[in-house]
Amino acid sequence: MDGNKKISIAVIKRLPRYYRYITELLENGIAKVSSQELSRRMNLTASQIRQDLNCFGGFGQQGYGYNVEVLHKEIASILGIPDPFNVIIIGAGNMGQAIAKYENFNKRGFVFTGIFDKNPNVIGQDINGVKVAHIDTLEDFVKENKTDIAVLCIPKENAMEIARRVAALGIHGLWNFSSTDLHNIEEEFGTVVENVHLTDNLMVLGYRISELRKNGKN
Amino acid sequence: MDGNKKISIAVIKRLPRYYRYITELLENGIAKVSSQELSRRMNLTASQIRQDLNCFGGFGQQGYGYNVEVLHKEIASILGIPDPFNVIIIGAGNMGQAIAKYENFNKRGFVFTGIFDKNPNVIGQDINGVKVAHIDTLEDFVKENKTDIAVLCIPKENAMEIARRVAALGIHGLWNFSSTDLHNIEEEFGTVVENVHLTDNLMVLGYRISELRKNGKN
Repeated sequence: MDGNKKISIAVIKRLPRYYRYITELLENGIAKVSSQELSRRMNLTASQIRQDLNCFGGFGQQGYGYNVEVLHKEIASILGIPDPFNVIIIGAGNMGQAIAKYENFNKRGFVFTGIFDKNPNVIGQDINGVKVAHIDTLEDFVKENKTDIAVLCIPKENAMEIARRVAALGIHGLWNFSSTDLHNIEEEFGTVVENVHLTDNLMVLGYRISELRKNGKN
Repeated sequence: MDGNKKISIAVIKRLPRYYRYITELLENGIAKVSSQELSRRMNLTASQIRQDLNCFGGFGQQGYGYNVEVLHKEIASILGIPDPFNVIIIGAGNMGQAIAKYENFNKRGFVFTGIFDKNPNVIGQDINGVKVAHIDTLEDFVKENKTDIAVLCIPKENAMEIARRVAALGIHGLWNFSSTDLHNIEEEFGTVVENVHLTDNLMVLGYRISELRKNGKN
């Protein structure tokens, strides 16, 4: 892929979905796929798919379709998957532990390397092969171990302080599960932040159910 | 609020964030707030905030701002919060358990009422005050207990089958943590679906880190 070409964020957000489908095809030994077939599986129009895949040079052949292996490699390369990302988790509560044990991440090139907490009751506990360490050892750990992403699974009260501490260590990515927004971290430190506001998402679902009922469809 | 007025989905998606901030203000005993103050806290422009709040009748007074309590009630009512939603969880693995224990949901009016699995090793286990039941008892449970939302925390292989089973029971909302898309459920059953594709989100983060590094900003 031409590393200089800029891909729109809308296409980027669809890429993991393409990656998932194409990985499935690859795992099932399927060598080629048409945009019609992808369209059916992904609920996008075939022309949308052709347009998306053209964005990063994945040209299909008329009457043949796309080579699944090539497409898989291209998307993996755009998403930065050939280089695994080392991931630490801050907060060994329920959500932190669930993330640590989520097997899909490993398959997608994210390696769980450390987990930190301040609660003496969990420190030393083994979670998916990694011992929970005290949060005060974070700085030493990051100095000695390449760390790409920190996952914040801590209460919102501490989120900003820990986010600044993590970003100051030069960690490039923050995956934020704390139900608060981390303002200014991107601007100040250049660290990229992705938020997973589960409660927000659940509330949108609640709203849509209320609307459905108001409209008497159900 | 005028129940017939249609609010755009973009505004709806910002509502939980307004709700979070305004709940905080309320909890801190703050009686009024200006659009400038909300703007600073929420990283939106003041004019965007005025426009959003006008959408559902939350008119501020010149030189006074918005009444926090009134605003809180209005947003809660739009989001359907006065009526609690009963939530069951399908899959008592790590993610299912983390969701069951996530205390923020309860605060937002979502009540955890049941959890189901097929694994004999977890059936009967107590999770946040609720015993894990066998998935085969799902139909009986839903007949006897008002159930608004089912959270799918199961492997993608079973997701579609379980989603259809849940939707056929007349449950109005599906919150999908399985890393697969649930096509046609909305169309066929009228059940609303919100997806939390954690791996997709993490991959977008990975992509953004790669871009950051390519551009030599870090």
